[in-house]
Amino acid sequence: MNSIEELKKEFGEITRLNHIRTLLEWDQQVNLPNGAFGGRAEQSALLSKIVHERLISDKIGNLIKESEKLNNLNLIDAATLREAKRDYELEVKLPTELVEEISKTASLGFVKWVDARKKDDFSIFQPLLEKMIRLQIEVAEKLNTHPDPYSTLIDLYEPGATYDWIAKIFSKSKQALNKIIKKLDASDDKPDFSILTQKWEADKQWDFSIEVIKGLNFDLEKGRQDKSAHPFTASLSSTDTRFTTRINENFFSTCLFGSIHECGHALYEMGFMEEIHDNILADGCSMGIHESQSRMWENMVGRSKDFWKFWFSKLEKSFPSNLKGVSMDNFYRSINTVQPSLIRVEADEVTYGMHIILRFELERDIIEGNVKVNELPEVWNSKMEDLLGITPPNNADGVLQDVHWSSGSFGYFPTYFLGNLYGAQFYKKALKERPALPEEYEEGNFSNLLTFLRENIHQYGKIYQAKDLIRRVTGEDLNPDYFIEYLETKFYPIYRV
Amino acid sequence: MNSIEELKKEFGEITRLNHIRTLLEWDQQVNLPNGAFGGRAEQSALLSKIVHERLISDKIGNLIKESEKLNNLNLIDAATLREAKRDYELEVKLPTELVEEISKTASLGFVKWVDARKKDDFSIFQPLLEKMIRLQIEVAEKLNTHPDPYSTLIDLYEPGATYDWIAKIFSKSKQALNKIIKKLDASDDKPDFSILTQKWEADKQWDFSIEVIKGLNFDLEKGRQDKSAHPFTASLSSTDTRFTTRINENFFSTCLFGSIHECGHALYEMGFMEEIHDNILADGCSMGIHESQSRMWENMVGRSKDFWKFWFSKLEKSFPSNLKGVSMDNFYRSINTVQPSLIRVEADEVTYGMHIILRFELERDIIEGNVKVNELPEVWNSKMEDLLGITPPNNADGVLQDVHWSSGSFGYFPTYFLGNLYGAQFYKKALKERPALPEEYEEGNFSNLLTFLRENIHQYGKIYQAKDLIRRVTGEDLNPDYFIEYLETKFYPIYRV
Repeated sequence: MNSIEELKKEFGEITRLNHIRTLLEWDQQVNLPNGAFGGRAEQSALLSKIVHERLISDKIGNLIKESEKLNNLNLIDAATLREAKRDYELEVKLPTELVEEISKTASLGFVKWVDARKKDDFSIFQPLLEKMIRLQIEVAEKLNTHPDPYSTLIDLYEPGATYDWIAKIFSKSKQALNKIIKKLDASDDKPDFSILTQKWEADKQWDFSIEVIKGLNFDLEKGRQDKSAHPFTASLSSTDTRFTTRINENFFSTCLFGSIHECGHALYEMGFMEEIHDNILADGCSMGIHESQSRMWENMVGRSKDFWKFWFSKLEKSFPSNLKGVSMDNFYRSINTVQPSLIRVEADEVTYGMHIILRFELERDIIEGNVKVNELPEVWNSKMEDLLGITPPNNADGVLQDVHWSSGSFGYFPTYFLGNLYGAQFYKKALKERPALPEEYEEGNFSNLLTFLRENIHQYGKIYQAKDLIRRVTGEDLNPDYFIEYLETKFYPIYRV
Repeated sequence: MNSIEELKKEFGEITRLNHIRTLLEWDQQVNLPNGAFGGRAEQSALLSKIVHERLISDKIGNLIKESEKLNNLNLIDAATLREAKRDYELEVKLPTELVEEISKTASLGFVKWVDARKKDDFSIFQPLLEKMIRLQIEVAEKLNTHPDPYSTLIDLYEPGATYDWIAKIFSKSKQALNKIIKKLDASDDKPDFSILTQKWEADKQWDFSIEVIKGLNFDLEKGRQDKSAHPFTASLSSTDTRFTTRINENFFSTCLFGSIHECGHALYEMGFMEEIHDNILADGCSMGIHESQSRMWENMVGRSKDFWKFWFSKLEKSFPSNLKGVSMDNFYRSINTVQPSLIRVEADEVTYGMHIILRFELERDIIEGNVKVNELPEVWNSKMEDLLGITPPNNADGVLQDVHWSSGSFGYFPTYFLGNLYGAQFYKKALKERPALPEEYEEGNFSNLLTFLRENIHQYGKIYQAKDLIRRVTGEDLNPDYFIEYLETKFYPIYRV
């Protein structure tokens, strides 16, 4: 066996161990009894330690060095080497004490964040957040993959992306979103949101979501849907991809669109080519590309009129009294209501970007030291006023709303909005290549979009990096115009403007 | 840290890895999508390899040697060393190739066994069974813990037990069971079994089983009940014990008594003292002792009249039409119907022992070479005629009914019946110390039996071996008279003989 084959074998085992670690996490969210968290934490920590020891071993280090001497590596081998080196260096460059310190700070930070949010008291969370920011700046210094520390952190989630690149894209998007939001707000014929806030029976919501994901070709022989407090997708092996949703009896969108969103992530994880199954390349190529898949299925497909031309009559059968006197068109408009709101995870397609831009700008200022942690609540609120024209009445629904910072995830937020942008650009290409897609949706046929995505995106896993992938698939770099055009084309008619 | 402390630390990690392996198995039985078995098998194999490598490491070998030099080890440390040495030697004495060969033969053997049973064709299974028997004899030779190979195999499941010891106990039991079965069979006032074979709605059976296990003080904060094809109990950590049951809509006993049986196993696993949590001693002391707990709760408690004095009115509320005109007494008699039958897992308390004695005698003859594999079907049938007075009409319901031999588990069966015997002897002692127990059941109070079991049995885990434990708790060695006395006292009145 040559060095690259041996490297693949080693990372095959590391990948399996990571899959097992993912099972521990999935089970924790879905099944774990309340009194069993302590034991589970010990198990996760032990597996992490075993993976860490394998990753930083001389064996892996030497195999990488040997493999770098090989010429003419094929596509998969070259990508394997690139990703193996990335993972290895990440583990080797960060001192164990720093990693442990972050882990401890995150555990305590989570507890303090929950408490601070509950009591609407930012000062409870502030000291932990200050410490976490110092630690993340230290991470950026140790890794040092980009000249500015925030770009180094972004690179952890969106390999190759930088602050400058994203800032340019977001700045352009901000202007355009502003224009659309103002125009929709001026409409005097807005959707009837109250259709969605009736009582929707939980069991029937669940059954309907199962019917829909089957219709989207989610393979229940190679995956599951379950319930958890926070929806997520987990890859437990290349033939076992599971996701969760949650049910709100007083709001229709939570379950179904949560379900379709996670199903989009899951379809990506299920579509890797066999040659990379259960190895280091069997993963999404970046968080942004992953999010492009979930947002595409959730919004561009699941919230489209053509989708509901097929599914509405089925929904009527499940909920005859809720939908009595509601036309398909009014239902479609209802699920596409746009209104500036406080909470990111509840935001509509149009205003969502503003929530992300706010966090992106703030994170940059925090990491650069331009904003002090004690100033955050105030800066948050004034940015909300600036971007969405509303001011949070408290910090619980303002700066304290997201869990991310408590765990040290700085640089993660921008990938959410990048996902929307990637998604629109991919979807435009899919429609160009397969113009009959929307008509097929009307017939309940969603397989040809999946085929397009499998052929062009899913099968490659981490083989291509995001910047190469978008160029390969669409012929150009990421361009926010596609998303803006998508929003205008979709929402102006809905709002009759 | 001295050597025994280090040894505990090492086995703490091995125990956690084994718990993770148990999660993989639990999830496989309860959740795994049909198409995901291949990936799961690879994960289990990888974890097994990691555990094996740790167990046979020089580090463990040296720590055992060093620890053996220590004087005045306390109770827990001495037991830890004893069990560590046992596990270490088991791994070291068996060549890796032999273990792998058994694993492969078991995988294929399972497939062939399923096929043979389905087609009622013993010859499909025969070659694999012959191979497995040769391999198990080789295991016995390598381990060589007893002069005769069958005793060495029994010792794997019931440490310290030998063929001779069990044969004496079983021989005495056989005569007594024979007498009881004949006497009950001669009754002209037998229970009405048909009460149980009405249609019992699945959801309500499930809900009732949950109510009952809560009533038996199963802590749902530290465990779960789920459904699976074959009921089992799994310890995922010392604060996470899960079990399963299954539901048969056409037979009441399957779900509830399966549930109580597994709950009995689970209560044992949940009751270890904190000092041994998540380490090598956090385990049942033998398969027989484990089975004593499940059978005690299932039969001596769950099928007792005092139990139903409390639960019958609740069952009536769940199933009013099924129990219309059925008195508590008739229901109680119904769930205690005794009749010779073909299938071990469906056998009643009285005839169950005969099924085990048959397997015990056969296994001895197989391992000693006194019975050839091709003679097994015939010998099985003639023994069934001899022990229970019935002859299987086919091999599927005869020699092919149990999965155990396909995986090489020779020596496991006798522990099932030993469990009944241990159980009766423990229970007798519990009643002697706490004579009010049955009256407490009438009030729905089952906590004092659990307290007795926790104090005398559960908390110790593997600290004591079975022979020491029974003597400590009851003051004498295992004595089958208690079980026989229990059967006579209970069943003669039920059968009005």
